[in-house]
Amino acid sequence: MRNIKLEIEYDGAAYCGWQIQNYQPSIQKTIEAALRKILQEKVKLIASGRTDAGVHALFQVANFTTGSAIPAEKLQRALNAVLPDDIVITRAKEAGLDFHSRFSARSKAYQYLILNQRYPSAFLRNRAYFYPYPLSIQLMRQAARYLQGRHDFRSFCASHSGAKNTIKKIKKISVSTIRYPLYAKRYRLIAVEIEADGFLYNMARNIVGTLLEVGRKKIGSGSLKKILLTKDRSSAGPTAPANGLYLIRVNY
Amino acid sequence: MRNIKLEIEYDGAAYCGWQIQNYQPSIQKTIEAALRKILQEKVKLIASGRTDAGVHALFQVANFTTGSAIPAEKLQRALNAVLPDDIVITRAKEAGLDFHSRFSARSKAYQYLILNQRYPSAFLRNRAYFYPYPLSIQLMRQAARYLQGRHDFRSFCASHSGAKNTIKKIKKISVSTIRYPLYAKRYRLIAVEIEADGFLYNMARNIVGTLLEVGRKKIGSGSLKKILLTKDRSSAGPTAPANGLYLIRVNY
Repeated sequence: MRNIKLEIEYDGAAYCGWQIQNYQPSIQKTIEAALRKILQEKVKLIASGRTDAGVHALFQVANFTTGSAIPAEKLQRALNAVLPDDIVITRAKEAGLDFHSRFSARSKAYQYLILNQRYPSAFLRNRAYFYPYPLSIQLMRQAARYLQGRHDFRSFCASHSGAKNTIKKIKKISVSTIRYPLYAKRYRLIAVEIEADGFLYNMARNIVGTLLEVGRKKIGSGSLKKILLTKDRSSAGPTAPANGLYLIRVNY
Repeated sequence: MRNIKLEIEYDGAAYCGWQIQNYQPSIQKTIEAALRKILQEKVKLIASGRTDAGVHALFQVANFTTGSAIPAEKLQRALNAVLPDDIVITRAKEAGLDFHSRFSARSKAYQYLILNQRYPSAFLRNRAYFYPYPLSIQLMRQAARYLQGRHDFRSFCASHSGAKNTIKKIKKISVSTIRYPLYAKRYRLIAVEIEADGFLYNMARNIVGTLLEVGRKKIGSGSLKKILLTKDRSSAGPTAPANGLYLIRVNY
């Protein structure tokens, strides 16, 4: 038996998310079907974590075990030939049998892109949240600082998630402006990057939705402390849309 | 009568090009339909030049005359509300009645993007030419230098174009590597930028196709001089695909 680790990039716009849901195209289902075609064997793909409908990945990790002797590089090429253009295997390599994409992960990082200008972009549709209102990056940064470290993030967890342990550690959170180099001078993008030892359901998007309320001066940057303490989802801001969110790193 | 100038960004992937062709969605047709809806008047849109099927624009310019008194900024917002997401009006302003998007243009610039790495990208599909072979940027630069200036570009003009005057002046041509900032370290992109007082049919894509043959060492960088002199399309390289090409600037 071999354990194959895949690194995957996908544009989530056309999918119902990572996880298989009957009758809807999912990333997992699509890759499993491609693997079955190539390996002539049914395999079960385990990801570092599920991504929701519309969420993207620059770096998702998944693994599966197989009896096949196909070299990993050859498998990568075969997968990319079979998969649709919006899913790309950026690396395939053999891992130890004890490697588990989810349980072995020490932390994951997400990036959220906000297109903060007066008009939208033809090229960033479905890839950034178009938010035309003036934002104070400084206030967003101040607010983000309160979230760093180990906290009970229940206020940022989808209320229907049913998670028992809502304590997570945010190792890094940053708010920065980036210039889109292909189209220099044209796009004003803000990126929120969050690295944590784990993410609750909708946690990244709820944090971003709250930081946007701060940036727009609807809530004070200091209230983040209070919002954490209430442990009540309704005290935080709205959930930012899925299409601005990218899984960008999984650390093992 | 007022003359309205529009600056337009579009993702060309879903269109048959700028120009109206019956039964196929074109950029021109789509914007004219939106204008008609808003202005309740049939208008004719004149662009700085046509773009082919699949070609993108970060900065296309078009103008039309109207009897309507609608303020330009209000028209921009209304257009963006009506247009599909892959066409965005980035600016609308009133121009003098003597302004003509095509005849008034002094030069135009195109950028061609090449994704030069071993695997494709889910996010750059339809937006860059995936070219996995090793390329010498230095040789491509050397070759490009021969094209700078005023030349007869017949060898780079589609043979069926029927153009009479094939003399154009390339004001600037550059070959550079760019790093995609959103996904730093992940993509290796090469950009070819060409600014000229005019472009023959397929000229930009034929130049890029030839530079790629040079970069791959299939033809010598010095042969560009000879290719120009033959005035024969068959002496140059193949036509690079449309989906890597962007109209990025029109100078008036």
